[in-house]
Amino acid sequence: MKKNIITISREFGSGGRTVGRKLAERLNIPFYDGEIIEKVHEETGFSQDFIKEQGEHSPTKSIFSYAFVGRDVNGISINDYVWNAQRKIILDLAEKGPCVIVGRCADFILRDRDDCFNVFIHADEKFKAERIVKEYGETDKSPEKRLREKDKKRKINYKYYTDQDWGVCDNYDISLNTGTLGIDKCVDIIEELVK
Amino acid sequence: MKKNIITISREFGSGGRTVGRKLAERLNIPFYDGEIIEKVHEETGFSQDFIKEQGEHSPTKSIFSYAFVGRDVNGISINDYVWNAQRKIILDLAEKGPCVIVGRCADFILRDRDDCFNVFIHADEKFKAERIVKEYGETDKSPEKRLREKDKKRKINYKYYTDQDWGVCDNYDISLNTGTLGIDKCVDIIEELVK
Repeated sequence: MKKNIITISREFGSGGRTVGRKLAERLNIPFYDGEIIEKVHEETGFSQDFIKEQGEHSPTKSIFSYAFVGRDVNGISINDYVWNAQRKIILDLAEKGPCVIVGRCADFILRDRDDCFNVFIHADEKFKAERIVKEYGETDKSPEKRLREKDKKRKINYKYYTDQDWGVCDNYDISLNTGTLGIDKCVDIIEELVK
Repeated sequence: MKKNIITISREFGSGGRTVGRKLAERLNIPFYDGEIIEKVHEETGFSQDFIKEQGEHSPTKSIFSYAFVGRDVNGISINDYVWNAQRKIILDLAEKGPCVIVGRCADFILRDRDDCFNVFIHADEKFKAERIVKEYGETDKSPEKRLREKDKKRKINYKYYTDQDWGVCDNYDISLNTGTLGIDKCVDIIEELVK
């Protein structure tokens, strides 16, 4: 079975999104990232910024909120509502054919297909800290703190919806360190494996 | 900096040892596995079977034993004594030049060098179960139980001596699934990256 649906999970700042975009360009297949957010927006009516934040981040805050303010859409929390919409969209996109999907627990959502190639992209803190300052600019928080906060949310979100641990080798076909290998070399390796 | 000391950590049954042996043959550099056990034997006087078992496996049992029977060699537990001897031997072997070292927390022991390339080899349970029956024969225990027991010991041993989690992508430059990629393809990828 040819594996031509490539899911890319990534640490914040590792360049995983860039790896995915370049890979999709080389393979001439769709790259789904912003498009998923747009589709969830169409489906749910929530703002794209809200979906971007909720779609990959810890549901814990909202769970506590809902304990006090009640549940919202059709009796389920907003987090679960966004998750369900996102899950359905990812399943539909995979049905359309070869593609690259970044983040959003796609490796788990598509686990029953045998044409998925699951990748995890990571790097050491120094590489990621320098990269986020270069890519997204400085903020009041230190880059290290921004990295830790973002990945902590992704980790909790992944655990909550998949009951698996994020960033554990066993969940992926390959994991690659962009800090030591370089972004382009990572694209080369994946391209060669799925071509 | 060229990375020509390759450490290979691996799940039991994944074929990580075979990947290491083939890689060392192709690169024409020493492959250290049994040699480390022999050297620890020379250094400590313990039997090779005992060292094989202690060198990568959970120290927990012995720790509890020592609480009752006292400590043994120079006031430290036998586990720590074997660990120290093994650690020193691995540091010395790396000093000698390019090589492949399998298991024994070598990735952690050599973490201060910048010429190490750290690999984790894993596979799904079905692939590993079939492989251990083919390689090592059947026993009274189910292959799945043998896999779980062995890797649990490796995991605890790694945590105890490194304070890191075993099999987490962040500890390695690359992790590869031999079950989906095949053993020879994994050798190809690593060879190309370190050559």
